[in-house]
Amino acid sequence: MRNVLLLSTSTVHGGAYMEYAGPYLRQFLGSTKSILFVPYARPSGITHERYAGLFSEAMANAGFQAESIHTAADPVAAVAAAESLFIGGGNTFVLLEALHRLGLVDAVRRGVEAGMPYMGSSAGSNVAGMTLGTTNDMPIAQPPSFDALNLVPFNINPHFIDADPDSKHMGETRETRINEFHCFNPQPVVALREGAMLRVEGERASVDGTRGGWLFRAGEERQAIDTGDDLSFLL
Amino acid sequence: MRNVLLLSTSTVHGGAYMEYAGPYLRQFLGSTKSILFVPYARPSGITHERYAGLFSEAMANAGFQAESIHTAADPVAAVAAAESLFIGGGNTFVLLEALHRLGLVDAVRRGVEAGMPYMGSSAGSNVAGMTLGTTNDMPIAQPPSFDALNLVPFNINPHFIDADPDSKHMGETRETRINEFHCFNPQPVVALREGAMLRVEGERASVDGTRGGWLFRAGEERQAIDTGDDLSFLL
Repeated sequence: MRNVLLLSTSTVHGGAYMEYAGPYLRQFLGSTKSILFVPYARPSGITHERYAGLFSEAMANAGFQAESIHTAADPVAAVAAAESLFIGGGNTFVLLEALHRLGLVDAVRRGVEAGMPYMGSSAGSNVAGMTLGTTNDMPIAQPPSFDALNLVPFNINPHFIDADPDSKHMGETRETRINEFHCFNPQPVVALREGAMLRVEGERASVDGTRGGWLFRAGEERQAIDTGDDLSFLL
Repeated sequence: MRNVLLLSTSTVHGGAYMEYAGPYLRQFLGSTKSILFVPYARPSGITHERYAGLFSEAMANAGFQAESIHTAADPVAAVAAAESLFIGGGNTFVLLEALHRLGLVDAVRRGVEAGMPYMGSSAGSNVAGMTLGTTNDMPIAQPPSFDALNLVPFNINPHFIDADPDSKHMGETRETRINEFHCFNPQPVVALREGAMLRVEGERASVDGTRGGWLFRAGEERQAIDTGDDLSFLL
């Protein structure tokens, strides 16, 4: 019975870190108040300690108590004992390298299969998919494999941004990049704008949050998705 | 005696494919009229054949004759016999996977060391650096290693774009991404705006083209670079 909540972003424009997310986390976690935090993605290269401090403070404001896995002597055991898990955003390559190195890919999968609620934002949402192949991040570290947690049978593109029709930049748009992904990979891609999130409970998946996104499938026109849409057919 | 020309982009806004580049290539190649093209980066997933056709046509207009390596029975031998080499843009992961798989990383290095002029645009410029770690592309294929051609002792970030101060997007700016790179990697990064290029002749490196960029070094403030600037101190 998996229970998964994937946020496109930890922070929306004009808000504080994780501020907008509080009500969604309370609804998702119900009576659970304890969260194990995974800081390995290190946004802007900040230390695990500083990142965990920012998260704990934001969670205290939202009514939760967060501990960080980086202080655990045995990270695998810490996951096994966790009431819920939140993998924070940052660099997806740095994150996935750490998850593989520490044996956490299997540990997190086992925990989620046993009912531990999983939450992620940005890189933490990307790694819940089949592979990191639809991250937006720079490959500043090399994981041994691009295979990710595979909690859902598709890929996630967080921070989706629609193309600016007035842009003079010749680099690829996000849409072009995801279409390129589908020249080499078969799985669907759920692309979430900032503010959007994906919720998966058992065999039911739906779009939550505020801004929707797109469903990209190989060989098909992309399909708009919005808050409340049922995506269970992807599971 | 290396002879290297790295273009940020193949196409500038409002121009046709490789149109702006013609005069720079003529100046760089001198009397050499024959170019071996490497189409493996496959922009938007187009076929090698179609990509090679686009390149050959653009080069014919610029006064060159281009053959594509994908038609060669032995790609390593084709590089060894080439009068000059151009690696086209597209997806850097797809490109580097092919270069490693076909044994071309060493072959291209040997050719450049023996005096074969090397040209690249976008992904083809990125792989001339130490690693692909500063690509902007999605990791839609997995190379066995992120180590690249190492023709210059630093990394290249093509298609550099300055942050939009009015943006409400919370995803990382390019500057933030390159600074994150430097939390995990020591080598300098030459970031080139579209229209800019880097020229390396032996022990001399300089900025060419029209739009400049930035030099990022670990632990230092980034430094503006512009057309005509001497970057030989990086070699």
